[in-house]
Amino acid sequence: MSDIRYDFGSGRSNPETFPVADLQAAAVRVIAEQIEELNDYPGKLGFAPLRRAMAQRESEREKVAVDPDHIVLTNGSMQAVTLAGEALAAPGDPIIVEEYSYPGTLSAYRSLGLEMSGVPLSADGMRLDSLEAELHRLQQAGRPAKFIYTISTYQNPTGFTMPKQRRLQLIEIARQFDVPIVEDNCYADVYYEGELQPAIYALDDDPRHIYICSLSKILAPGLRLGYFLARPPMLEKLLARRHDAGSNTLAAAIVAEFYRDGVWQHTRYGNEALLVKRNLVLSALEAELTDLCVWSKPEGGLFVWVRMPDDVDRTELWRRTQADGFAYLPGAAFHYAGENVPYLRLAFGHLSEAQIRDGIPVLARCLRECRTSNEPMQHTSLFARD
Amino acid sequence: MSDIRYDFGSGRSNPETFPVADLQAAAVRVIAEQIEELNDYPGKLGFAPLRRAMAQRESEREKVAVDPDHIVLTNGSMQAVTLAGEALAAPGDPIIVEEYSYPGTLSAYRSLGLEMSGVPLSADGMRLDSLEAELHRLQQAGRPAKFIYTISTYQNPTGFTMPKQRRLQLIEIARQFDVPIVEDNCYADVYYEGELQPAIYALDDDPRHIYICSLSKILAPGLRLGYFLARPPMLEKLLARRHDAGSNTLAAAIVAEFYRDGVWQHTRYGNEALLVKRNLVLSALEAELTDLCVWSKPEGGLFVWVRMPDDVDRTELWRRTQADGFAYLPGAAFHYAGENVPYLRLAFGHLSEAQIRDGIPVLARCLRECRTSNEPMQHTSLFARD
Repeated sequence: MSDIRYDFGSGRSNPETFPVADLQAAAVRVIAEQIEELNDYPGKLGFAPLRRAMAQRESEREKVAVDPDHIVLTNGSMQAVTLAGEALAAPGDPIIVEEYSYPGTLSAYRSLGLEMSGVPLSADGMRLDSLEAELHRLQQAGRPAKFIYTISTYQNPTGFTMPKQRRLQLIEIARQFDVPIVEDNCYADVYYEGELQPAIYALDDDPRHIYICSLSKILAPGLRLGYFLARPPMLEKLLARRHDAGSNTLAAAIVAEFYRDGVWQHTRYGNEALLVKRNLVLSALEAELTDLCVWSKPEGGLFVWVRMPDDVDRTELWRRTQADGFAYLPGAAFHYAGENVPYLRLAFGHLSEAQIRDGIPVLARCLRECRTSNEPMQHTSLFARD
Repeated sequence: MSDIRYDFGSGRSNPETFPVADLQAAAVRVIAEQIEELNDYPGKLGFAPLRRAMAQRESEREKVAVDPDHIVLTNGSMQAVTLAGEALAAPGDPIIVEEYSYPGTLSAYRSLGLEMSGVPLSADGMRLDSLEAELHRLQQAGRPAKFIYTISTYQNPTGFTMPKQRRLQLIEIARQFDVPIVEDNCYADVYYEGELQPAIYALDDDPRHIYICSLSKILAPGLRLGYFLARPPMLEKLLARRHDAGSNTLAAAIVAEFYRDGVWQHTRYGNEALLVKRNLVLSALEAELTDLCVWSKPEGGLFVWVRMPDDVDRTELWRRTQADGFAYLPGAAFHYAGENVPYLRLAFGHLSEAQIRDGIPVLARCLRECRTSNEPMQHTSLFARD
């Protein structure tokens, strides 16, 4: 494999807006001021000032009251995703995910032995007719789904946001089938444009739902700071699965100090820079691939989801792009059952503008070279089986 | 409960020797220099410079070569303890622990549904005749033990260190019964006096053994930095259970920078201060309780293990010490089956000298007041059923 010059693969944060000076100042302060806390175990909930800051973040975004003692800091959102899977289901149990979803989640649930059903997607999120049919099928089979995992806002990888009306319908279906919702909202604050949609937990106070969020997308994944929001007794049910004595106080204290006036100022600053990159990706795709591919125009998040013609040799595409220094994640990585679907995901948050501008034409050339026919464009929609 | 003025309960590190200025300087450097790493996911192994520093720590202590790629950073040693339990055993499987052991481990393995057998202890560690008998019993019953968990150096709570000769015998027994050893060496570098004993992994290169260590005791638990050392394929077996996308890069990078010249200078400095506290605890016990109790004189670690007369009303002792502002952990917390044994553990690392000096007489008075007879001292040994 040659060196990767255009790494559209991993969903990293933007190093250009990493707040070096502010984090340095925060670190200097908390190392001196939090000596007692740093020399103690954090406890299962985690460093209280950061839980308060995240409760404030949630209640400011969602306009609902959030109790900081219902927020639990985790080692990235992935620990929360895993705890939810362990607490709600046992090996062999069926659960519901979106047909395309975050590979970290799919890998964790696969490893826990959960049997995933993937609900087909539309531009508005899970197709609720399919969801209902699958829940019904499982119920009839005497093996009801143990939970529904959904990324409803700026979904990874597809970029959709589920509108409020459909969220309310989803909540209603979950209630009918008596199944909790695990809501992964990690991308929500990476906002560019469009109407904000409320989180599911803000629309439904069913205490069985679990809400998951993170600082990896609005600050940096190397901090490993995620959290979940759950109410008793679900809160205790998740905590009972936790055996690591709590999340990093040093990172939590530095970040709590950094966000002492709230998360929005730095988040807005970061989003402005990311929007420029998103626009660059979209205009480069427009210039290069309009005749061949369709792709998402996400109103937030760090990814563009590209549907390529079915006649592209996808093994060859992977080989050729790697050889030309271009990396992406293939559709199969996101498919709930690992199916080799004709999609790819482009992550752009950490790339320079030059890398985006120079990289997309490399992808476009490789895509054309890997076609096995001369058919005109095959798909006009990102999701429909057209 | 009144305010606790003398908290001999939790095993915290010493805030007095917490290296504030050096950690501040390290934080300022790494936040500026590790921008790329901080904006990326750490990966399952964790931040490479800290893995190299810990490989150096191990190979300097044990005089054996240690491959940094066999070291995996974890969210405190407890994540490693849990991963080992998950990788080596399934719910219902029998495992071996020391009769008295670390409550975090006992709680994790209980939660995983493992069936613990507790091997009686002597001043030299696990009684190997009892170990052999229990392994034999389990084997005969068709349910062989899945692993042996041992804290062989400055054991928590009892303070013993297993001599090299007995370690070799333990290794031989493990080989005979074909059972891996999970070695928890978290306290090893909190050294005061006596002969250093080699770690089990340095005496036996059976690739199924798992070694666990931590920075919580020589630096601070709020950093949540532990690690395990395992060789393939055991390494992959543990990594397959990990779903949190890796340990905190920020904390790891700060600590790697802090230890850039090795761990020993700060460790020695910390141990000198801890030795003063250990000596204070021992001399206060000597002054107050010689006629009534026996206790460990640990050559390292953060704990003194006290055996009290059987006729102390232990429920009343807990109530009375709490009311008088004195906290400890009762023997039952350390017993593998939760039995209410007549012991208590005193943790001293984080206490001031004044707290130690003023606290032990409070404990002594409460102990005397909670006796239900006037018998003379009942025990002359810390372990023997005399």
